[in-house]
Amino acid sequence: MAKLFWRYGSMGAGKTAALLSVAYNYSRIGRAVAIYTAALDNRFGEGVVASRMGTSRPAELFTPCTVFDTANLANDVACVLIDEAQFLSTRQVGELHRMAALGNIPVIAFGLRSDFRGEAFEGAAALATVADEIEELKTVCACGRKATFQIRMDEAGKRVRDGDQVQIGGDAQYRQTCAACFYSDE
Amino acid sequence: MAKLFWRYGSMGAGKTAALLSVAYNYSRIGRAVAIYTAALDNRFGEGVVASRMGTSRPAELFTPCTVFDTANLANDVACVLIDEAQFLSTRQVGELHRMAALGNIPVIAFGLRSDFRGEAFEGAAALATVADEIEELKTVCACGRKATFQIRMDEAGKRVRDGDQVQIGGDAQYRQTCAACFYSDE
Amino acid sequence: MAKLFWRYGSMGAGKTAALLSVAYNYSRIGRAVAIYTAALDNRFGEGVVASRMGTSRPAELFTPCTVFDTANLANDVACVLIDEAQFLSTRQVGELHRMAALGNIPVIAFGLRSDFRGEAFEGAAALATVADEIEELKTVCACGRKATFQIRMDEAGKRVRDGDQVQIGGDAQYRQTCAACFYSDE
Amino acid sequence: MAKLFWRYGSMGAGKTAALLSVAYNYSRIGRAVAIYTAALDNRFGEGVVASRMGTSRPAELFTPCTVFDTANLANDVACVLIDEAQFLSTRQVGELHRMAALGNIPVIAFGLRSDFRGEAFEGAAALATVADEIEELKTVCACGRKATFQIRMDEAGKRVRDGDQVQIGGDAQYRQTCAACFYSDE
Repeated sequence: MAKLFWRYGSMGAGKTAALLSVAYNYSRIGRAVAIYTAALDNRFGEGVVASRMGTSRPAELFTPCTVFDTANLANDVACVLIDEAQFLSTRQVGELHRMAALGNIPVIAFGLRSDFRGEAFEGAAALATVADEIEELKTVCACGRKATFQIRMDEAGKRVRDGDQVQIGGDAQYRQTCAACFYSDE
Repeated sequence: MAKLFWRYGSMGAGKTAALLSVAYNYSRIGRAVAIYTAALDNRFGEGVVASRMGTSRPAELFTPCTVFDTANLANDVACVLIDEAQFLSTRQVGELHRMAALGNIPVIAFGLRSDFRGEAFEGAAALATVADEIEELKTVCACGRKATFQIRMDEAGKRVRDGDQVQIGGDAQYRQTCAACFYSDE
Repeated sequence: MAKLFWRYGSMGAGKTAALLSVAYNYSRIGRAVAIYTAALDNRFGEGVVASRMGTSRPAELFTPCTVFDTANLANDVACVLIDEAQFLSTRQVGELHRMAALGNIPVIAFGLRSDFRGEAFEGAAALATVADEIEELKTVCACGRKATFQIRMDEAGKRVRDGDQVQIGGDAQYRQTCAACFYSDE
Repeated sequence: MAKLFWRYGSMGAGKTAALLSVAYNYSRIGRAVAIYTAALDNRFGEGVVASRMGTSRPAELFTPCTVFDTANLANDVACVLIDEAQFLSTRQVGELHRMAALGNIPVIAFGLRSDFRGEAFEGAAALATVADEIEELKTVCACGRKATFQIRMDEAGKRVRDGDQVQIGGDAQYRQTCAACFYSDE
């Protein structure tokens, strides 16, 4: 039985860099990986995962309609890597878990836990409920502590507390914070 | 800033024993702890947390109406321990997190992640979304792998797939399983 | 391939309680475990592992002469548990790791990392070098931080800085401390 | 009290990429870091840490003579990062730990645990003995399992079992392996 890994971290924690590092390591031993990212996130163009540190790879896009099934994978895939996994649905997390548990293909999902209001993303909550291993990728708050949240700011740099979980094409900026900064700012 | 810890594990993983071990260690250095458990769970009597290994301690009961606030704690409390934390509400998890982040009192919550259908408990999903540290307490499936789920069985030992998340006063029995046994049994 | 687990913690972190909890969980699924503890440590009598919380189990004693080999285990052993694993030799750690990696029997070793001078125990250093998983069992320093060291005190309660790593039949007392207390006390 | 982190991984596990990611995150919040690497390792030139994925940063070189002391750091350093930390001496690990515990500067050390014979590096054993947090950076063995060892090969690709721990200017190649491949090859 292979495992489903949930590797969460705040914005800027190096999630995509870590995903690309795993992909690179499979390449080095001559094994193929399947990489997926959310169609929702096209900051770096369609169908690509790219780290802020400068590296990138092509990726399949997943939407709410995507069905994850071992039968749909190329035969030689040794590992499935998901970026922006917070946008998975609960159903898709179950499909990916079956792929690992019954199909024996390790699945490593990278993503955010919570939105700018501190509320769960659906995919994140589902992954945290069933993943075989949960691992944190860390980053640092402006105060020096570990960051575990993100806050949204408007164009004037003022914190925004309400709004849609995902803002497409807006001017929102985000900043990662520790719990003390997240709550004390209120 | 103190931290909110989420220590999850399947049934039989030693969650209550681990909680009692923390309580014991604070006693040894002369510090008080506040222990809470869910009013819902009275297998061992009202107002007590008890490990299957034989030790126990008195505990406060929490219900959906309980408000967690530093002002309500005795002055000398050095740590808050929550058993059966899957029964916390999302609001209560936020209150406990503020207690840690702003009140500087570490909070350690022990509980299950998922019910017999593999679905999240509210408190578990909320804890997984915000906790500063997530740690697993492990146990073993009948097949020898790590158990991460639990299944419910009727009085005849047959697996039950539907029903209420919590069954009060019934004859249900539970068994912890790994993901492969959880899914393949279907 | 099964794994070698190194679960370290300071004195009072609940290492033996955790070992007994694993043993209990294997019993519940009808599987046998082999339990070993160091012949050196007979605080609770010969051939027994006992938690400060009140539970205990019989155990085999290991000495520097013990050879760990799958061939020496009872046929039905599903897991090997080692208490006081800091007293293993480097050779014995290699034997236990082969037992896991080649013999497919999980080995879980519990022990201290460092002695009262902050120096490594041989077994602890060897386990930290090769173990497939390293996990910490935590306890608390008198100052409230996580304890990661232990200090030795004489009968007057004064800190002792020199002496043998292990003191047989002496009056030494130990106290677990965080790094800041360990170093600042100097 | 800040912490000393020991982040170990086999060759190719992305240790340097992870170090650079931490450096980048401190830059983003306007904080300075001090980066050190072993003078011994000049694969990418003197005084630079470089990831196989293409990014790099200048670094101070440490030798066995280097003394780590808060007084020697620039005033604004918020975090100390050590690459190739397996080459630290036990004394240097103690100095770095005091820097974290007493000087309140987090120290994150990245490195290998064991050499091609499966034996500890001095710095790795010392870090595993005292670090406040131990975290693994993972990579994959040619067999698909997690790699935790490295083996040395001669120019013909044949495994080498004896020789110096560090080979300067030689033709040795290395390959990371899991425990089963490491031991069964024997």
